[in-house]
Amino acid sequence: MQEILSAVRRGVLTEAEAETRIMAILYERGEDFLLDLHREKRIGFPEVVYAAGKSVPQVLAIAAAILEEKGAVFVSGLDDERESALRGRFPDRILRQAGRVLVIRADAAAPAPLGTVGLVTAGTSDIPYARECGLILSELGAEVVEAFDAGAAGMHRPELGLRTVRNADVLIVFAGMEGVLPPLIASLTPQPVIAVPTPIGYGHGGLGEGALCTMLQTCVPGVLVVNIGNAVGAAAGAVRILKAIRKGGGE
Amino acid sequence: MQEILSAVRRGVLTEAEAETRIMAILYERGEDFLLDLHREKRIGFPEVVYAAGKSVPQVLAIAAAILEEKGAVFVSGLDDERESALRGRFPDRILRQAGRVLVIRADAAAPAPLGTVGLVTAGTSDIPYARECGLILSELGAEVVEAFDAGAAGMHRPELGLRTVRNADVLIVFAGMEGVLPPLIASLTPQPVIAVPTPIGYGHGGLGEGALCTMLQTCVPGVLVVNIGNAVGAAAGAVRILKAIRKGGGE
Amino acid sequence: MQEILSAVRRGVLTEAEAETRIMAILYERGEDFLLDLHREKRIGFPEVVYAAGKSVPQVLAIAAAILEEKGAVFVSGLDDERESALRGRFPDRILRQAGRVLVIRADAAAPAPLGTVGLVTAGTSDIPYARECGLILSELGAEVVEAFDAGAAGMHRPELGLRTVRNADVLIVFAGMEGVLPPLIASLTPQPVIAVPTPIGYGHGGLGEGALCTMLQTCVPGVLVVNIGNAVGAAAGAVRILKAIRKGGGE
Amino acid sequence: MQEILSAVRRGVLTEAEAETRIMAILYERGEDFLLDLHREKRIGFPEVVYAAGKSVPQVLAIAAAILEEKGAVFVSGLDDERESALRGRFPDRILRQAGRVLVIRADAAAPAPLGTVGLVTAGTSDIPYARECGLILSELGAEVVEAFDAGAAGMHRPELGLRTVRNADVLIVFAGMEGVLPPLIASLTPQPVIAVPTPIGYGHGGLGEGALCTMLQTCVPGVLVVNIGNAVGAAAGAVRILKAIRKGGGE
Amino acid sequence: MQEILSAVRRGVLTEAEAETRIMAILYERGEDFLLDLHREKRIGFPEVVYAAGKSVPQVLAIAAAILEEKGAVFVSGLDDERESALRGRFPDRILRQAGRVLVIRADAAAPAPLGTVGLVTAGTSDIPYARECGLILSELGAEVVEAFDAGAAGMHRPELGLRTVRNADVLIVFAGMEGVLPPLIASLTPQPVIAVPTPIGYGHGGLGEGALCTMLQTCVPGVLVVNIGNAVGAAAGAVRILKAIRKGGGE
Amino acid sequence: MQEILSAVRRGVLTEAEAETRIMAILYERGEDFLLDLHREKRIGFPEVVYAAGKSVPQVLAIAAAILEEKGAVFVSGLDDERESALRGRFPDRILRQAGRVLVIRADAAAPAPLGTVGLVTAGTSDIPYARECGLILSELGAEVVEAFDAGAAGMHRPELGLRTVRNADVLIVFAGMEGVLPPLIASLTPQPVIAVPTPIGYGHGGLGEGALCTMLQTCVPGVLVVNIGNAVGAAAGAVRILKAIRKGGGE
Amino acid sequence: MQEILSAVRRGVLTEAEAETRIMAILYERGEDFLLDLHREKRIGFPEVVYAAGKSVPQVLAIAAAILEEKGAVFVSGLDDERESALRGRFPDRILRQAGRVLVIRADAAAPAPLGTVGLVTAGTSDIPYARECGLILSELGAEVVEAFDAGAAGMHRPELGLRTVRNADVLIVFAGMEGVLPPLIASLTPQPVIAVPTPIGYGHGGLGEGALCTMLQTCVPGVLVVNIGNAVGAAAGAVRILKAIRKGGGE
Amino acid sequence: MQEILSAVRRGVLTEAEAETRIMAILYERGEDFLLDLHREKRIGFPEVVYAAGKSVPQVLAIAAAILEEKGAVFVSGLDDERESALRGRFPDRILRQAGRVLVIRADAAAPAPLGTVGLVTAGTSDIPYARECGLILSELGAEVVEAFDAGAAGMHRPELGLRTVRNADVLIVFAGMEGVLPPLIASLTPQPVIAVPTPIGYGHGGLGEGALCTMLQTCVPGVLVVNIGNAVGAAAGAVRILKAIRKGGGE
Repeated sequence: MQEILSAVRRGVLTEAEAETRIMAILYERGEDFLLDLHREKRIGFPEVVYAAGKSVPQVLAIAAAILEEKGAVFVSGLDDERESALRGRFPDRILRQAGRVLVIRADAAAPAPLGTVGLVTAGTSDIPYARECGLILSELGAEVVEAFDAGAAGMHRPELGLRTVRNADVLIVFAGMEGVLPPLIASLTPQPVIAVPTPIGYGHGGLGEGALCTMLQTCVPGVLVVNIGNAVGAAAGAVRILKAIRKGGGE
Repeated sequence: MQEILSAVRRGVLTEAEAETRIMAILYERGEDFLLDLHREKRIGFPEVVYAAGKSVPQVLAIAAAILEEKGAVFVSGLDDERESALRGRFPDRILRQAGRVLVIRADAAAPAPLGTVGLVTAGTSDIPYARECGLILSELGAEVVEAFDAGAAGMHRPELGLRTVRNADVLIVFAGMEGVLPPLIASLTPQPVIAVPTPIGYGHGGLGEGALCTMLQTCVPGVLVVNIGNAVGAAAGAVRILKAIRKGGGE
Repeated sequence: MQEILSAVRRGVLTEAEAETRIMAILYERGEDFLLDLHREKRIGFPEVVYAAGKSVPQVLAIAAAILEEKGAVFVSGLDDERESALRGRFPDRILRQAGRVLVIRADAAAPAPLGTVGLVTAGTSDIPYARECGLILSELGAEVVEAFDAGAAGMHRPELGLRTVRNADVLIVFAGMEGVLPPLIASLTPQPVIAVPTPIGYGHGGLGEGALCTMLQTCVPGVLVVNIGNAVGAAAGAVRILKAIRKGGGE
Repeated sequence: MQEILSAVRRGVLTEAEAETRIMAILYERGEDFLLDLHREKRIGFPEVVYAAGKSVPQVLAIAAAILEEKGAVFVSGLDDERESALRGRFPDRILRQAGRVLVIRADAAAPAPLGTVGLVTAGTSDIPYARECGLILSELGAEVVEAFDAGAAGMHRPELGLRTVRNADVLIVFAGMEGVLPPLIASLTPQPVIAVPTPIGYGHGGLGEGALCTMLQTCVPGVLVVNIGNAVGAAAGAVRILKAIRKGGGE
Repeated sequence: MQEILSAVRRGVLTEAEAETRIMAILYERGEDFLLDLHREKRIGFPEVVYAAGKSVPQVLAIAAAILEEKGAVFVSGLDDERESALRGRFPDRILRQAGRVLVIRADAAAPAPLGTVGLVTAGTSDIPYARECGLILSELGAEVVEAFDAGAAGMHRPELGLRTVRNADVLIVFAGMEGVLPPLIASLTPQPVIAVPTPIGYGHGGLGEGALCTMLQTCVPGVLVVNIGNAVGAAAGAVRILKAIRKGGGE
Repeated sequence: MQEILSAVRRGVLTEAEAETRIMAILYERGEDFLLDLHREKRIGFPEVVYAAGKSVPQVLAIAAAILEEKGAVFVSGLDDERESALRGRFPDRILRQAGRVLVIRADAAAPAPLGTVGLVTAGTSDIPYARECGLILSELGAEVVEAFDAGAAGMHRPELGLRTVRNADVLIVFAGMEGVLPPLIASLTPQPVIAVPTPIGYGHGGLGEGALCTMLQTCVPGVLVVNIGNAVGAAAGAVRILKAIRKGGGE
Repeated sequence: MQEILSAVRRGVLTEAEAETRIMAILYERGEDFLLDLHREKRIGFPEVVYAAGKSVPQVLAIAAAILEEKGAVFVSGLDDERESALRGRFPDRILRQAGRVLVIRADAAAPAPLGTVGLVTAGTSDIPYARECGLILSELGAEVVEAFDAGAAGMHRPELGLRTVRNADVLIVFAGMEGVLPPLIASLTPQPVIAVPTPIGYGHGGLGEGALCTMLQTCVPGVLVVNIGNAVGAAAGAVRILKAIRKGGGE
Repeated sequence: MQEILSAVRRGVLTEAEAETRIMAILYERGEDFLLDLHREKRIGFPEVVYAAGKSVPQVLAIAAAILEEKGAVFVSGLDDERESALRGRFPDRILRQAGRVLVIRADAAAPAPLGTVGLVTAGTSDIPYARECGLILSELGAEVVEAFDAGAAGMHRPELGLRTVRNADVLIVFAGMEGVLPPLIASLTPQPVIAVPTPIGYGHGGLGEGALCTMLQTCVPGVLVVNIGNAVGAAAGAVRILKAIRKGGGE
């Protein structure tokens, strides 16, 4: 735009011509306004490629493009076929995996420290979801503290878990079946609690619908919920809170 | 039948005629076989008239007939109009009421003692359902111990309630919203636990559907569930267990 | 316990007797462990009395007891009858109301400043829910910035709203119908975003179910959701985050 | 009928006989009235054979019959087995495929130009549905302009897409997950917008139910919806509109 | 902007200052970009105020503001109270009403002719929805042709209706219960068909859910659907098509 | 048509003109083909006006028109207001009412005898639905035999009912709650059994959805089901069967 | 019993002893009363073994036992494995198969003629369900007339089908998708119509739920419905009606 | 604690120091309070490892740990892969299996007798669920009496089953499809009845949802329900009741 204005000043460009050109830029910017190109910067969370429903060539192409542009790519919803394809396509990159999430980097990450997130699971079956979440968080600079259950059926041991994650800035709690752990944790702690229903369960209210219900219906105040199995969304919610903490209050 | 057989013996009736007559009786008995006439005796729980959906005259007529025949009638699902009508119709009988249940008796009841039932509620809004249940139980001879919450929102105080009902033979636990109290209680006690979802709640999973989900999905073993708001069914289930206790094991 | 130990020291109490007595206390404390008595302090959010489903006398009694003990009581889910009863019962207290929420205080509140929350609504019908949320937040010390829509049907003007709430620490976004505003806001800002579906809408997906779906399904990362119409829960979630911000990171 | 009337005129046939015969024809015509034989002509859209749920021999037989009669056959809902069978059966015909749709022609199509349809997708996973739609449209003479997303997660870039399809007569917008792109597009353009929810998504509101909800609930006026994944129906709806445009207004 | 550029030319403004000022305008325009201020012009359909869920003062204020600015206001979702308030507030304006929709104008409307829409109803109970739709359409310049059923239960008489609306540019078909009329009409005509399920019906699939199902599931190609009872959305969809017809094809 | 043919014969009309005229009639007849004018005759069941959702004037107008044309009108889905209006409008006609159904006749009906239908109800609350059904059946000439329960809660007494209706040609069985009576009856009898779920019940599966489920899922072969509360449809189904019986087999 | 009575007559048995013995028999008969042993005779329809969910050995054992006892066995819900096992087990019996139903007989069946059933399908995918139904019916003596669609998409040709099945005593109509054919047929014929929704369809209302909705909601009177895909139940319902026709009215 | 108290007595520890140490223990005990370590003892039912959703190594590790600690481990929800892995891992232990449940013991169990449970199934397909339940019960000392149906379709023979299980202390009744057997049994017996819906069924209300509905909606009083297919929960509920019986009433 400086060039246009300079041309106006030099008399090389009439005002009408200048306005037309500026409007063209203006329009482009308006156009860009909703574009995702700068979204990562704007919302502070990288694009995560959801591999499910995309063909293998699509996944490879998208991953390569983002890796090229940003030096790292996050892929979720992987199955064995797409994972093998990605591993075969990027044999010499740094790959980290958890659950169905894969992170591919050109160089070792050295993200600025972001704060601490406590991950708590109600049962063994919830652990893969928590690990996906933890991988994304640690890649982005968060310290991850885990309180993973190992084999207990029935009502949960929130206190034991709570002590482990006592100093975390944010808690993310995963539960399937009746989904009662997140409200239980939230009733014992003042921290922000993000609840992730997992698709564990059977019969009426199975596939996580019962857990989702509990988390939405709970009378413990302040439980914040994401969709069933949405470990990525929980990580993103936690990152937003961690960044708000680092930024400090609005003073 | 003695008459028929006697007639056979006396030769007044041929064997063929006798068989025909006996078959007629036989048929009648077979007919009666599924009749409700003796159901109360058979299953050990009185018929409870469900007033909702019945007209006022129907409710009055049915109540009068049962009161006449059995000396007592239990009516549930009452609204103000039907309650007033019953009270007006039986002014000199003994009436006890709780929630939407009314018991009308010709004489003061002196039921045989049946054992103790502990009633626990998660919130103030659950109390009317518990009271309905308690009225029916006490009318049938059970001692009722109450651990009713009074005003606490949020996660529940199961231990306080548990101590009160520690010596009950059976526990009935009422909860709406996310319905987590019954599994919590059941995880802390070896007693039989009957869970009653109440139609309390809002939004997704409201009207008790979320509570029902939790109670069915729970991984605490041995929670037995009745339909949303079914205080009568919970009382009946408890009576069955109390009678089994009184009868003792199958030795 | 000092008394018991002192008695041990003085030889007045045997060690066995002392242990028994301490165990009794221990048990009591274990008992208290899950009690709500200290929950407000523990989780940093006051008990909010949910009036719906409670009788008028129950609401009055609970409100009086809490007001007596804590100097303030928050009541939600009010209808006209319960509101009038409360206003009649506490004529000389300080009352503030918004939507179906009423706050009653013995003295003017002077809460410590807690940070800033931006409230954004998609439509005029969402405003009462936002006001409930704002009343609770301001009573607890949060500064509330409002970007309330006024009469626009159709797609929303997120940018205009965003500028108003740009400096808020946390955003709470209310929307019924197709519920698209929270993800739209979240795609344009790095702040924590709490999404509140409101029970606005009709036909398939009405009563807020469609809005809830959108908020759970959105591919914008980091949208945290509460149940339909749960303005209190959204406020509580925001308070948890504000407190985490004030406490600072885990350094 | 001319013959009958001629016979009447010639006196060969009585009026009564003639009426009987004409009534028989009449009945036949009434019979035909709802027949599909002329439906393609009547509604201006070819029969599309839905292969799912039909056996391989059925699909082959139906395709052969239609191909024979009309020179072209459209088959949707194909799986690999049925596609291979069709390709094996018609090795020397002109075949075009997209997604699960296959078009088989005896001769190269030269349909009359029908106007322009803009196809917009929200995510990479929606592209196969858009391609099915585009294949059918182009086979029928429509020019297809594509604005296919390529790898963006999160909120969409409607403006970029809109510019591409700005001159299309009708827009068809495909979206899964929260399904917000069609209303967003519709809020920025005056053109007819057909919204196609795709069965992309997970957890609560997955399989396209959440997207369908959004498209039905949206407050952007004039979004017209077809069932989840119904690319054929969207194409047919667009063809109806294109034909209405070509026919011009009712002047 | 001409002023700024002129100032640049005159040397009154430096290029840097000019860019800052232009960016401010730019930002404003970007801001406006999604604003509803020009939406009516952009999408060619007026804002319709949805009165349900808004308070009476809100409805009056919004209506007055729009009436002031645009000379006309459309209000939908009215109940008696809100309708009376509007009638009382604007006694000397031109008011037209149908179903729950009210149009208030400062002056008699003389909209440019827009084409013809055929409205077909399956049953008498659907007529109010059709009338709402027709009022909006006629206010915007469309000619409305009605084929309203009057009292027929059971399967419908599509042919009779079709003849009446034969020359319409677009058909809008309303049906509750099993909702079969729109596909039936669409199988007999090449015109664009918009299907409106109405909230008529009972038991399983009642409240219009069964009709919605039928309209989405139908195998008649090209039926375009709006939400249950969404007469306004159907009108808006029709206006989009009518405008596309008037504009003609993309030649 | 005789006139046209006669004109042809007389040479007054050319064959071409005649064909045009006959085609016009033909078209009209085709038109009529789906009309309801003769539907009553075609399907053997009168049109029943569904009053719910129709305005009072509409109900009166439709009833008057049908009464005028056919001498009798059946109205269902009545509320008090519409019933009073009808009674006030036709004070001197013969009116019979049951549940929400009203039959109005100009003259006393003397329908041809049609056979016998047995009506069985599971509970007192189902009786109004059975009476609606019985009224319609008796108006059409069927003899109605009733086996109405009177006050029994719990499992039903099918045998007692069965004996009463043993000689009926068709059985219609009404049940709400868990809806088990129709399959129970059907397991004990060879007769056609039509099952009517009634909207009786509460909590999960309430409003008749549970009863509908049972009736559709039952493993007793041959239970035929209508929608919840659809007493009219059950009567119509029975009439079809009765007519098939009277017509006899296809020999 | 003759023996007992004879013993009474001979004085060998006292009346009391006789009564005890007769009561024992009585009890046994009461026991048998609900037994399935005579159910086939009682309800006039053979037991059909539902193979799905049973192990291969269970299916073989049950089939062998019934075949032994009754000379024929009907098996439904077969998959390839169970079908092969049955064919391998009974190589020299008479086997007839259709869809997932297999009938095995010791001897050629010569059932008494039962009347005629017309089977109508809406689409090619419905044919297997109709064939299952037809096999059972023909095995039981019914003549089966088929009007099977062959490849038509879209609205159906009921008239053509109707003529074929015009003289059938009962019609069974199969439809998936929007399920409109059964009400359409029922609106054109006075015969009993049994509607079978088939699990054909996709997206919202798929798997036959939309078709079920339509059949339950239809305003065409007298459509009788069975569960989705329940061809066996439809056959059983038809057999009940055919037997009622053969038995004639209750004169 | 004795050591601490002893140190206090000896003057080695001040009272303040002692309190601090005791509080630490206190805290630990509070911590343990909700732990599962003693849950088996507390609720009288062993932890059952739910294998579904756990990886093979997880299942092996958990099973080994519990087997080590308690001498026996119960695993449910097994598939072939996990079962083989467990059998391979514990080749020399005592293994008993039923359905998808496996019990592994170090030594032969000799549990104290617990009473008798009657297991009743409605159909052959329900037997695996009953066997799972029976295995757990017999491992815990209960005597199991079975009344398993063998091949009867249609309405059930409750009386025959009832006689077999007449002397059981508790009945557990399994049923899929329309799920009517549990209420039928409960209407004929005074014993506690636990109802287990099984995931048998098809179409509307399939996968056990219809059976669950029936069991929750039934008007037979006292039917206690667990989730669909939850044989473990039913066993646990029965064990609670058996223990209450052995303990006797609260006298």
